[in-house]
Amino acid sequence: MNKKPKNLAAEKRKEALKRLKKLGVRLYGQMEKSTFPWIKMPSRSTQNIFYSPEVRQYVLGDKMVRRSSRNIRHIRPLTQLIWAAYFARDLAQQRKTSTLRDVYYSAQAYEVPFKDQPESNSIITDLETVMGLSREDFKVFPEERSAIFGDLTIEYTVPGYEGKRLNLMSHPDGMMIGPALTSAEFVKTSADMVIAIEKGGLFTRFIEETVHKKYNALLVLTAGQAPRATRHFIHRLNRELDLPVHIFTDGDPWGMHIAMVIISGSANAAHLRELTTPDATWNGVWATDIVDYDLPSDALTEVDIKRLHDLRKDQRYEGDLWRREIKKFLEIKKKAEQEAFSRYGLTYIVDEYLPAKLEMTD
Amino acid sequence: MNKKPKNLAAEKRKEALKRLKKLGVRLYGQMEKSTFPWIKMPSRSTQNIFYSPEVRQYVLGDKMVRRSSRNIRHIRPLTQLIWAAYFARDLAQQRKTSTLRDVYYSAQAYEVPFKDQPESNSIITDLETVMGLSREDFKVFPEERSAIFGDLTIEYTVPGYEGKRLNLMSHPDGMMIGPALTSAEFVKTSADMVIAIEKGGLFTRFIEETVHKKYNALLVLTAGQAPRATRHFIHRLNRELDLPVHIFTDGDPWGMHIAMVIISGSANAAHLRELTTPDATWNGVWATDIVDYDLPSDALTEVDIKRLHDLRKDQRYEGDLWRREIKKFLEIKKKAEQEAFSRYGLTYIVDEYLPAKLEMTD
Repeated sequence: MNKKPKNLAAEKRKEALKRLKKLGVRLYGQMEKSTFPWIKMPSRSTQNIFYSPEVRQYVLGDKMVRRSSRNIRHIRPLTQLIWAAYFARDLAQQRKTSTLRDVYYSAQAYEVPFKDQPESNSIITDLETVMGLSREDFKVFPEERSAIFGDLTIEYTVPGYEGKRLNLMSHPDGMMIGPALTSAEFVKTSADMVIAIEKGGLFTRFIEETVHKKYNALLVLTAGQAPRATRHFIHRLNRELDLPVHIFTDGDPWGMHIAMVIISGSANAAHLRELTTPDATWNGVWATDIVDYDLPSDALTEVDIKRLHDLRKDQRYEGDLWRREIKKFLEIKKKAEQEAFSRYGLTYIVDEYLPAKLEMTD
Repeated sequence: MNKKPKNLAAEKRKEALKRLKKLGVRLYGQMEKSTFPWIKMPSRSTQNIFYSPEVRQYVLGDKMVRRSSRNIRHIRPLTQLIWAAYFARDLAQQRKTSTLRDVYYSAQAYEVPFKDQPESNSIITDLETVMGLSREDFKVFPEERSAIFGDLTIEYTVPGYEGKRLNLMSHPDGMMIGPALTSAEFVKTSADMVIAIEKGGLFTRFIEETVHKKYNALLVLTAGQAPRATRHFIHRLNRELDLPVHIFTDGDPWGMHIAMVIISGSANAAHLRELTTPDATWNGVWATDIVDYDLPSDALTEVDIKRLHDLRKDQRYEGDLWRREIKKFLEIKKKAEQEAFSRYGLTYIVDEYLPAKLEMTD
């Protein structure tokens, strides 16, 4: 079926510019009234981060913080924040993209230096909080790239490519999910679902075995922990195209958490809503799969076991499936990779495992 | 200009199948003559790996090893090697691709198990040595993916895409370099050079600033140490299209070595010739650039310094440029990232640094 896409990318850019301008106008207004400029924003301290069962992700509480140039301890972070806003507006106006690393170095040109990368990253997160937008909206991207493949036609909005369309099945190694794809509009798809895959080898296997056709699926390679741009892209596929999302990872606490971060996000991004896909499902490799399919496995390490105990206390892991699988991992003390299915032949995972696991979560 | 491409991908597959068959015929022949099957191949021990100034890469010496099923200690690796050859033929015949991890697990189905991943990797390298081909030729790929962008039209040879053409400027986030692209034929390009870049952020910057147009360049993202498939792809761009290759990395011993491995390869791949590009040049970030451009820098760590001393003893680093830069790094005891140029504005690296550095190595 063809779905009518909703155009969000262009609106996002306008919205970012509008909010940045509003911030600037407010600061100038304060100075014109001879008050020391200040900014108010939700606190990002751990005491103000809560898990919300309704929204099914971490959210910020009501506690607000105020940064004022009147307070000598605030002058540095406030100045950095205002510079970051200036830099973000520059990017949006010039329609350029940038990285967290660029932000850190660019500041030096303006003599508003950061002492290290964590400090500049934190200021960018502050700016997200103040603006209620994610840094991708004001064009600050991460280094990492993942990929997508399948029958989705997109229309670019980046300079030089405006109005150009591309079908994401054009290149069978997959299309990188970078700034251009993230800001593209969805035009048309025949897909009925999204299948997200942790490993590059399996992503290629799925393409070769035409999983995209057999299941009318868009295949997303997370390449380990999915970069934020990719989590946002999966969110968009789910919301804008109403596609269910199924996630396949390695069968260990780390793979499990790759799925969880796509589903429920991280505490770090409690101030954002568009990086999560609460209705997405983790379809495998489960601890119970290791038993049921008699998979080649490795023993859990000390670190793996500690991690499982941590996850057990984590509010995001309260659902039945998660509790059962954590328990089973601790019981069998084993882990298995996605590639372990190769012991039954290279296509077993596609011919047998995949349909069985997709049915279970229907 | 348009260059006439040479079709290599299809020939490679045929050649791989021919050599695999020859190996099998030889083994069957031995058994029919009632001799214990055996295989002879160049030794890969460190005593038999030499740096060749003519070929400008590591090569294997004349020492040969013989593995015979008569020798009880040889039965295991010989059986594994023969199984690997069987598996490789299966892949080539079915036109499927696979990963090193798949090989490890697949062996279990045949009760020829490997004790761990390094053991199965080593047998695959043995197979490369016996065959005189690289594992990509018999379709065993690494996990990692990097990317390319620019005006190069390719024609796929993978099933389902045979004869389809794509211009690698179609998607401005870059096209993944995977099995499909690696085995594609080059049809047409207007490019005059290849620019390889270590970091994803800078790759995107170069695309946004239309470096591909300004310099008629194909842009390759190595994403850190270039995967073998990418090194082979760069080799092909250089050999088949006669394009000079310029490499830009971070200014530290690790970035330097990323360039060196693209240029002269690694001791590990001494038995192969198609992963290196001896005429490629490392254009930056040099230690002297850190001084000349007054770049924001970090102090070299102990590990960095030890690494520089190691590189100084490495035969691949005997050229004037390498010696000078190692000396300068040790003198200033500083390193700098590619993004450090952002201190002069986001486009400085494209507007000022890039043309200066391309001119120097012309």
